[in-house]
Parts: sequence; structure tokens; C-alpha cells
Amino acid sequence: MKPVNGYVQPLLTDLYQLTMAYAYHHSGKQDDHAVFDLFFRKNPFGGEFTIFGGLTEILRFVDNFKFNDDDINYVSSVIPRCSDNFKNWLANINCAKVKIYSVKEGNVVFPYVPMMRIEGPLGVCQLLETPFLNLTSYSSLITTNAARMRLAAGDDKTLVEFGLRRAQGPDGAMSAARYSFIGGFDGTSNVMAGRVFDIPVSGTQAHSYISSFSGLDELKNKTLKNKNGRKQNFVERVLHYRSELQFEDTKEGELAAFITYAQAFPDGLLALVDTYNTLKSGVPNFVSVALALNEFGYTPVGIRLDSGDLAHLSKETRKLFQKISQQYQVNFQKLKIVASNELNEQTLLSLNQQGHEIDIFGVGTNLVTCQSQPALGCVYKLAEVNNQPRIKLSQDSGKTTIPGKKNAFRLYGREENPLVDLMMLTDEDAPKEGRRILCCHPYDETRRTYVTPTAVQPLYSNVWDGKITEEQPDIREIQKYVKGQLKKMREDHLRNLNPTPYKISVSEKLYNFMQQVIKKEASVGEIA
Amino acid sequence: MKPVNGYVQPLLTDLYQLTMAYAYHHSGKQDDHAVFDLFFRKNPFGGEFTIFGGLTEILRFVDNFKFNDDDINYVSSVIPRCSDNFKNWLANINCAKVKIYSVKEGNVVFPYVPMMRIEGPLGVCQLLETPFLNLTSYSSLITTNAARMRLAAGDDKTLVEFGLRRAQGPDGAMSAARYSFIGGFDGTSNVMAGRVFDIPVSGTQAHSYISSFSGLDELKNKTLKNKNGRKQNFVERVLHYRSELQFEDTKEGELAAFITYAQAFPDGLLALVDTYNTLKSGVPNFVSVALALNEFGYTPVGIRLDSGDLAHLSKETRKLFQKISQQYQVNFQKLKIVASNELNEQTLLSLNQQGHEIDIFGVGTNLVTCQSQPALGCVYKLAEVNNQPRIKLSQDSGKTTIPGKKNAFRLYGREENPLVDLMMLTDEDAPKEGRRILCCHPYDETRRTYVTPTAVQPLYSNVWDGKITEEQPDIREIQKYVKGQLKKMREDHLRNLNPTPYKISVSEKLYNFMQQVIKKEASVGEIA
Repeated sequence: MKPVNGYVQPLLTDLYQLTMAYAYHHSGKQDDHAVFDLFFRKNPFGGEFTIFGGLTEILRFVDNFKFNDDDINYVSSVIPRCSDNFKNWLANINCAKVKIYSVKEGNVVFPYVPMMRIEGPLGVCQLLETPFLNLTSYSSLITTNAARMRLAAGDDKTLVEFGLRRAQGPDGAMSAARYSFIGGFDGTSNVMAGRVFDIPVSGTQAHSYISSFSGLDELKNKTLKNKNGRKQNFVERVLHYRSELQFEDTKEGELAAFITYAQAFPDGLLALVDTYNTLKSGVPNFVSVALALNEFGYTPVGIRLDSGDLAHLSKETRKLFQKISQQYQVNFQKLKIVASNELNEQTLLSLNQQGHEIDIFGVGTNLVTCQSQPALGCVYKLAEVNNQPRIKLSQDSGKTTIPGKKNAFRLYGREENPLVDLMMLTDEDAPKEGRRILCCHPYDETRRTYVTPTAVQPLYSNVWDGKITEEQPDIREIQKYVKGQLKKMREDHLRNLNPTPYKISVSEKLYNFMQQVIKKEASVGEIA
Repeated sequence: MKPVNGYVQPLLTDLYQLTMAYAYHHSGKQDDHAVFDLFFRKNPFGGEFTIFGGLTEILRFVDNFKFNDDDINYVSSVIPRCSDNFKNWLANINCAKVKIYSVKEGNVVFPYVPMMRIEGPLGVCQLLETPFLNLTSYSSLITTNAARMRLAAGDDKTLVEFGLRRAQGPDGAMSAARYSFIGGFDGTSNVMAGRVFDIPVSGTQAHSYISSFSGLDELKNKTLKNKNGRKQNFVERVLHYRSELQFEDTKEGELAAFITYAQAFPDGLLALVDTYNTLKSGVPNFVSVALALNEFGYTPVGIRLDSGDLAHLSKETRKLFQKISQQYQVNFQKLKIVASNELNEQTLLSLNQQGHEIDIFGVGTNLVTCQSQPALGCVYKLAEVNNQPRIKLSQDSGKTTIPGKKNAFRLYGREENPLVDLMMLTDEDAPKEGRRILCCHPYDETRRTYVTPTAVQPLYSNVWDGKITEEQPDIREIQKYVKGQLKKMREDHLRNLNPTPYKISVSEKLYNFMQQVIKKEASVGEIA
């Protein structure tokens, strides 16, 4: 399968990957065996967890990784000394000799523990750096953002992604729709995304629809076929209820808009009620039309609030629905109340605190642009070349990379919750259920603890071995997997306020190995 | 021409645009003559200006606007009652009856003054809302961000966009490269963007290149052909300078990396110097290799700093370059110093204050994700239907829309700077040079002022009249235009700290017209 996005091709990379590949090739290092780690150093949004997203697209990219003649011509135009030798090399490389060990898409991941380990010829693996980072950073960020909003809203609410108009470009929007679904959203307003990713689309009307009508005299057709197929005067019935309920001060343009919409979608009336005045015009107009629809045998859907105090307005609206239900013996108690308007995780939490009657949240800008932190700092670091460890030192010790070829395991405790993620060198025996093991903080010698896991989950599987090793789950399965993995986590790691950091660690052997490499590589400073 | 991005098709829209179109069509309003305004309400980044971007892509979208059979099948699958009538309508619409009046791409724009006015059949214009917003919001945001960074860095510095790996999806990255070039950047690291948009690409090496070498014994080839074509022992000469300069404590793996890179690109050595220790290893290693290159007849390029105190490190590096220049009678004074690492507008300004010796800035995450404000809140509001004004009221008066079909003019003052943007109804006479005119704040009756403009710039031209009316400028022309427009602005509107708001206004006639419409539409509240 091709990548979803047409730009996802070998040239979607930084120029320096190509100049480095050229220099590797020129110095005969292009086939050195390299191991790279892809990871991040800090969870986003002030939280203590991240959801890994992007693997499916990465595998499609790798599966189609091939420079064509046009690509090579372009490369040789920007790397002037580009030799024929190098061009031949470029024309012939692919990912047949690459292996990728990866966390499952949709699993919970934590700082420093690589989400992927990439092995293979140095020259090829180097070229994968930028596209891999591009394809994981935003995907993981938005999946995490969506998952956090799902946690904030609760499982019983419907969440719809509304961000197309404010997203970072057309594909910012496409990615947002896809990964927010994976993170736990129920659908999107983005029709293209609905089609491309086969996810539910929804939406009804905007203010322009309402304000395009100025009054009832604009209604060219006053009738509606009732559920039994008999055409009757619909407007007359709407006005009957409006008068009976003494709702006659409402805006007539708005009423006309609701009527026409009901005529077009008699089973689909979800009315935007805040164009003029939510409680004095929008909701009463909706009720008049909804009662007429009900009389005609149809089921109205509900209303959407797009401004004002959402908690208050939703409660008042629910009260009116309940009153109308009693008064007319109709089932309006459970009509849907949709809310939108600059929602984010904090607003969702605050609405919960205030109490509200909202069933469906439409979340746009804050979801898709990840407003509170619009980038996840994923990095791709060399861990080993030809079986020799590699390290990137930093004065900030937390930025020093963990050298060597590593596996990672998730150790579970008595409560069946994950306790700690453990990185080990690949030549070490995997941790075993019931056997005590020392887990060391990678950057702080004083923080180490014994763990006797009740269960051990190997975090990596070999997803690419010159070819895709197993069919990747579809978007719905990944969504389900996210939900399942989050359910296993202790609640305090997931909460919004002051969450507990989840422990990540290295084995004692890896700790000592790392120290040894650091000593070898570091120079002793001198302050004059 | 097709849109640059393959997703930019009629289905890249919110579902409600289609349901509204269906309902317009069902009630016979689809051909009502509508006027929409596209604008925003607040400049981004705490600034007082915005650059308008995205028009070229919008015109390509409009020019190709056509639902194909697959699109229509998909639409009818998500709008269940979709009639054949409506499907026929969808199959036959295009933008032949649409007119677009637009500010020039790259012009400076301000809150409330529409960047575009869209006129045509209500049903069609409604469908354009979401794609138009998607194609202007991020484009304008990133162009503005880039322009602000250009202002902060100064005209004599080179700015390169490095954000591909952290962008919001592949196309977030592509759009970022394109619009940051328009905003004043010199190029990008993104090879695909370089090819697609024909803009300069640059980049040399990453830490993984440096750390992939462990020592000099790895060098398979010790020679380099000098400029005259004679192959000589290059490594020997590097080690000669290294020893002569007493730089022997530097990391040998790093030195080997620089040597191989120099062998591959003898005229292109731009060395990443912070892998181990910038001043103790990276820069000295670069100098040894650079001197050998110089001896061989080549010109080294310079170094890149990617961590630490950039001001200090750049100054120390420059000093060493000057010292070496004197000592060896070489021209190393002006070697390039490149800086990267989480740069943003504030860091650029702070570096200026501290003093620095950086020639080239590579800006990534903060540029492409617009970290300090990742979305521009563009809106698309109905201003008129069938020659009747439309308004969207809001309790927040600044959110009430300005009704009616409007033109906009930029009035210039004595100093040849823009003074105020003025919106007028289209049936008013345009303001004239030298003739006094009253400019009214649209939301505050107490703020009005007479202006006698020295020049008047009409802000709109009719860029689409059923077809593209004139060839759009290319990306380089737009970049130049941005620069020219910014030069005309008074400096205090552009500055970073407490900039002066630029005045926007409506004519007296439009002010009164707006009040009249508000009075007609607003209901008087009642507090119990």
C-alpha cells in the first residue's frame, strides 16, 4: 500500500540526510551496520503519558522507499558534486536490509524509552531519520491530545473533531482527523478524512445558514410529507406550537432556517441555536419545529450551542426539553445537546465540575493544532555502529543518549497495572514474571528499585524485516487498543492535575555500560 | 493548474457545508446571490500585523472546483436523503458564477478588514467556506511568523527553515517551507519543498554523522585531490595543523567525520561542532581540517552551533577564526557561523541584544508550528443575500460582523506610511487623495477621526471572475512584495514589544448602516 499522503516519499527529508549519505558513501561507510533509536524526552501537555501514533504510515513509506529518476536528478541538482557512483547507489537502495522493532501503534509510551529501534545500513537508515520523525511527532502528539480529551470528557460522551478550518494546512487537518479518531474521538466534520480513512463524519449547520434567511415570507414551500407520505402544511403546525408556547418573540429568519432544514432533513434536525439569542430565540424556535416534526412522525435530533456559558445554557435547554416532554407527552428529554466553541481539555474538565447537560462535544482548533504544545520533540539518535556503542553527550545530562542496541519491557505489578518500563541490552535475558530485577534510573544513580513483575510485556515487535512482517491493525482496532492500554494504567499517571510520573529505567548492566561509554567519550572540563 | 496539495478538492470541507447546501437546494435558495467576507479578529503572536498568504492555492482550488462521480457517491453515502436532484446539482456546479475580490497575497492585513470578499450563488459559496479558511489560516499565520523572524534577525542574516521533522504532518511541513519563504526566509532544509516550490535547500550534517565515526583509524582513504587535480595525503596535513595548533586533545571520531565530509565536499565543509565540546573539540577540529582544505586550494564554509550559549560560542569562534586568519594569512575571518536549536523570535531578539557573530539561523519547531500561537482564527461570514445585509450578532460586540458588500482602502499619510484601512459600502465613492474623509471605528462611536490621505491604495482586486483574471505572481515576487509592504509600515506597528495598533475603520455611511442593521436584528434583553 502507498502512504496516505502523496508527499510521503524519500525526498520528504532534510537535505543534510542526503549530503551525509553522500559523505558516508564517499568514505565507504554507507553499509556499516547502524542502530538508531527514535524517542522523545518529555511528555506533552504537562502530562505523564504519550500515545504512539504513525507506525502504519511509516511502514507504507518504508515499503515504497525508492528514489526514482526524477528524484535523483533533483538531488544531483542540489548536491553539485554528486558522483555517478552515488547516483547509482541512490537508484538501487531500498529498505530490504532494514529491520524495524517498534512499539505497537496506539500503545502508551514514555520519555527516553525508544518507540522504535531501526537497524540496517548506515546510509539508508540515515535517510529515514527526517520522514520517520515527521511521521511520528505530530501523529503521536495529536493522538495523545485526543486521548486526553477523551479522558476529560468521559466515555459516555460523543467527541467530534471540528478542526479542518484551523488546522496547519490541508494535511494537518487530515492527520488530525485520523489520529484524533485513534485517540478516542468518534468522528470528524472533515468529509475528505471521512472518505480516506473510513471514519464517521458529522455536522449540520452554521450561522451563515441561519442568517441567510430573513423571515417566514421567504419560505417557498410550506409543506412536508409526513412519515406516512401525506403532504401537509408544516409551517402552519410550527406556528401553531410557537403560538401555543408563547414563543412569538423569536427571530423569524432563524425559524425559517430551522423549518427549511427540517424539510430537507426531517429526521436530522440538529439546530444551531445561538445566532441571535440562545434561550430566547434559538431553543424556542427549535422546540416549535421539533414538535411539528414529532407530529409528522419524525424524530428531531437536538441543538448545538456555539457560544456563551455552555454549562448554564445546556442545563436551561435540558430543563425546557423536560418541560416540553411532560407538557406534550413527547420524548424530548434525551434530545442531543451539542457544544462547540474553542473547547479544550481544561474546558471539558471545567464543564464537568460545573455540571452540564452536553452529550456531544465538537472540538476544533485546540485539538488539531495542539495549542498548548504544538510539537512533540521526537529525536532519532545513533545508538550503535558495527556493534560499537555510540553516544551523544550533552552538558544537560538528560540529553545524553542511551547507547547500545536495546530492548524494552513493561513490567506489571500486583494490581495488574504497569509499574515501570525497563530498557536492557539485547544480549541480556528478558525479565521474567515473578523474578526480582533491579531497575535503575538512567540518569540518576540514587534512584534504583527492585521490581518483581507479575507480568512482562515486551514492548517491541519486529514490524519490518525487509518487508512488512504482519498486517497492521486498522484504525478502529488501534482506537480500541489505545483505550485498552489506557485502562491498564494507574489513574494517577493519567490525571490532568499533577500526574505521577511513570517510571522508566535501565537494567543494571545497561546502566554500567552507559557509564563506561560516557567515561570513554567525555573529556574532563577545565574552568580557568 | 492543480492545487499543490492533492487533498485540496471539494470534499476537503466540513460535512455541514454539504448538508447546508442540500437544505439550500431543497428550499430553492441555492442560487440566491450571496456575499461572504473572510477575515480574522486578532493579529497573531501579540503583534499588530498579519501577512495574507494562501491566495495562489485558493485560486487553483477554485479553478479545479468540480465534484466527480466518486465524490458524489461518497456524499450520498453520508447524506442519506440525498436526492437525485441534489446529486445532479452537485455534479454540475463549479465556480463560473463566483467572483472573488482579494487583497494581494503577501500584503499586510489587519483585523476585521476582509482579506477576501466572495460573491456568487449561496449554495456554491457556502461550500467554499471550509477550504478557503483552511487555505488561508495557516498560510497567513506562518507567513507572518516568518516575516516577524526576518524583522527580528535583520536583513543581513540568512534564515533557513529547518522544521520538517517537527511540523504538523507532511503537508504542515510543505506549507511551512513555502510560506516561510514568502515571509522572508532564504530557503529550507526540506528537499521535497525545494523541488515542489523551487526554493533553495540547504543543510550539511547531523550529530549522527559525527558520532558514526570513532577514530582516525576508520579512515579508509587518507587522500584528497587538490584543486589542481593532484592527489595528496590530506589527513597528514590535517594532523600537521592540529599538532601545530596544539589541538591534540580534540575528539578523533569527530575529526575523522570532518575529514571524510571534507573529502566528499571539499568546497562545502560546514561542520557541526557541538557533538562533544564546541570550543575544545568541534571548532579546533574544524580549523585543522579547514586549514588543510585551504592548503589544497578549497574554501571551507564554516560551522554550525546546535546547543549551548549561542552568543558566547559564536563570539569565541569568530575570535579564533580571526586569530587563525592572522596566524596563517588566510581568509577565515568571514567563515559562516550557523546557529540552530529551538530558535524563535524572542531568541533572535535576545541574541541581537547580547551581540553575536552568527550569519545564518536555522529555525525549526517554533517557526513551522507557530508555537506561541498555532492557529489564526480566520472566519467566513455572510454579509449579504440578494442585496439584503446580513449580520451575526454577538454579546461580545467585537464579534458582531460588519454587514453589507464592502470595499476596503488603505489611506497613506504625509510620511508615505499607511495610516488607516477604511471599509466602505461598494456603492460609496472611493476615498480620494487630498480629500478629507471621516474614518469611524466600527465598534466604538467615540473613536473617529478625519484623514486627508496623501495616497489611496484600493485593497481588493477582482482575482476571480468565473476564471482567473490575471496570472498570480510567483513565490519570489510575493516574497519581494511582502518585504516592500512591510518597509512602508511605520516601525512602531511592527515592533515586538508593545507595538502600536494600526487603525482600521469604516466610513460614516457604513457605520450608520451597521447600526441600523444591528437595531433591526437585535432583540432587547430583559433581566429578571
